[in-house]
Amino acid sequence: MVIRFVQGLGKTALTGLIGFTLAIASPLAAQTVTPPAVQVDEQGTVQVPAMTVPVSSMLSPEAKAYVADHLRQMQQPAMVQQKNGVPVFMEPYLARQNMLFRHTRADTKIGGVHVFDYAPTAGIAPRNRHRVLINLHGGGFSGCFPGCAELESIPLTTLGQIRVVSVDYREGPDHRFPAASEDVAAVYRALLKQYPAENIGIYGCSAGGMLTGMATAWFQTHGLPRPGAIGIFCAGTTMSGFAFGGDADFVTAPLGEGRPAPAWPPTEPITGSKLSYFAGVALNDPLVSPGFSDSVIRQFPPTLIITASRGFEFSAAVHAHSQMVRLGVDADLHVWEGLFHGFFYNADVPESREAYDVMVRFFDRHLAR
Amino acid sequence: MVIRFVQGLGKTALTGLIGFTLAIASPLAAQTVTPPAVQVDEQGTVQVPAMTVPVSSMLSPEAKAYVADHLRQMQQPAMVQQKNGVPVFMEPYLARQNMLFRHTRADTKIGGVHVFDYAPTAGIAPRNRHRVLINLHGGGFSGCFPGCAELESIPLTTLGQIRVVSVDYREGPDHRFPAASEDVAAVYRALLKQYPAENIGIYGCSAGGMLTGMATAWFQTHGLPRPGAIGIFCAGTTMSGFAFGGDADFVTAPLGEGRPAPAWPPTEPITGSKLSYFAGVALNDPLVSPGFSDSVIRQFPPTLIITASRGFEFSAAVHAHSQMVRLGVDADLHVWEGLFHGFFYNADVPESREAYDVMVRFFDRHLAR
Repeated sequence: MVIRFVQGLGKTALTGLIGFTLAIASPLAAQTVTPPAVQVDEQGTVQVPAMTVPVSSMLSPEAKAYVADHLRQMQQPAMVQQKNGVPVFMEPYLARQNMLFRHTRADTKIGGVHVFDYAPTAGIAPRNRHRVLINLHGGGFSGCFPGCAELESIPLTTLGQIRVVSVDYREGPDHRFPAASEDVAAVYRALLKQYPAENIGIYGCSAGGMLTGMATAWFQTHGLPRPGAIGIFCAGTTMSGFAFGGDADFVTAPLGEGRPAPAWPPTEPITGSKLSYFAGVALNDPLVSPGFSDSVIRQFPPTLIITASRGFEFSAAVHAHSQMVRLGVDADLHVWEGLFHGFFYNADVPESREAYDVMVRFFDRHLAR
Repeated sequence: MVIRFVQGLGKTALTGLIGFTLAIASPLAAQTVTPPAVQVDEQGTVQVPAMTVPVSSMLSPEAKAYVADHLRQMQQPAMVQQKNGVPVFMEPYLARQNMLFRHTRADTKIGGVHVFDYAPTAGIAPRNRHRVLINLHGGGFSGCFPGCAELESIPLTTLGQIRVVSVDYREGPDHRFPAASEDVAAVYRALLKQYPAENIGIYGCSAGGMLTGMATAWFQTHGLPRPGAIGIFCAGTTMSGFAFGGDADFVTAPLGEGRPAPAWPPTEPITGSKLSYFAGVALNDPLVSPGFSDSVIRQFPPTLIITASRGFEFSAAVHAHSQMVRLGVDADLHVWEGLFHGFFYNADVPESREAYDVMVRFFDRHLAR
């Protein structure tokens, strides 16, 4: 109805900020069927009609095929099961990374915690001799070691020509918060004997991105210096009862994971996280969700935030960036259009290579030598 | 069905990157009704079921109310009509800006082109004496002068303590591309007699953000030096037959504007832009959509990109940033979660103030003195 009215107006009446909006509507108006109206209630809740959304027009050909594959894979339970800590759908990504990026890996302990200690086969670059990166892997705080650890560490050690220590931190369901933060602190404390804090970077994807912020907050209250720079990838600094909160809890479910959005209002009370690692834990504790505390975030070191518009962490990631900028933190945001949670695990997509470049350059720019 | 299967698995089988995803699904699984399946075809096109999406949990209280108001206003044709170049829904924003931000405005010509020439009542800051900002207003290349021009210029001249020249460039339907680029070049050429190029910033929102990139490309082929820094707000550097392209053509229609997403596949062939200013113009001309040319974008000066996740420009904005970063341009991206196209026209929302701060600091940091 809105559209019909607009069509009836003269061209000069169609001017304004909304010139683009009105122009968009015209193909629909040409149809004889009235499109479903969008209902908006007093609180601004939108009843979004069903819609058909193609892969983003802005992706590389490789990424378009990758999105199509990923969406279908996420609908196959067998693909997301893990074999020896590697989800089935990640196996080919890991094989390719091992082929593309020559590295060595030591299976060892640092600070009493099990780690994988990576170095590039070609050797560590002179500028990185006194630098190290700590990787905190993804996996929903309950698995994906070594799968996610490998996929996050191998490109950075090789392309960045830098040592990467990936921490096999304690997870659910056997362990609860703050076990992982304690493990990261133990590794960090041990590395501090060898490297100044400002020469150490910490980063991770998904649960590992979340844990990067959690560990940074943990250090503040446990007498540890802040690291030189951190990377929060595929995550933000807060969690919701669904996942990471914001619009992404809804919009990215079908578009990034091939599953329906959660019901709203919720069909049962939402109390805390669904992840076993956080059972009984208050999500608004700044050691869990540092983004709920301005005074904690204000002390963060330079922070790189990497996300994708179909990633279910997207809202939390961009919101974390806005908060950091507001508080004067040197925060740098990169969003890949049309891609999904953890997209850069696949090294054969040009967009993943762009992300690796951004990561490598960020730490090179911000870590002391 | 996927969800039911997952529920039947033991806890340890639920580990992996997708731990978060699986956790999200559990409230739905508790229902007796099977949620609608999400269909994904071979090309990755997603049949998104209807869903209910509340205002983002991450917004300030003021912004939550603002989103609700905006969505309802966009459904009322009378609100988007213009009176003397000011859309009705923008009238209160303009009244508030005039109350909040004390400034002077000269109605004059520069380089033969009609402009509004703004200065802060409190005076131009010493560091800005040899600097000027050129504003290119929004309005779909056919209107919203002075409405959009005022709303984009008043906060920056006052908060930034800097001269702002807002250009009343030629628009559709009376004029066609490249009339606006010519007008911007004429004003720029005139200001270059008074200011070095590196002391001049150019910025705008929506059509004005698009025109900022177009003018920057235009200068390259018309013997003009590049400006010191530019701000592409509420826009990207490419256009689509719908609007700005990417997922945002679909997702942000209901969530940012309260209207249905366009049909896909299109019900009629899409040929070029729907905007009168671009009638008969090839959208892939780099002087129209500079983002289609790496060699043009590579020469861009430091660029600030500001968008919002419900803005229909969102995909183009983040994609422009990715492209610039890939090409080595000093580009800075800021995304406000849950807000919509041109949200910062309303100065009473904390998020708008954050955006003004980012704009002011960006130009202060990048323009020469």
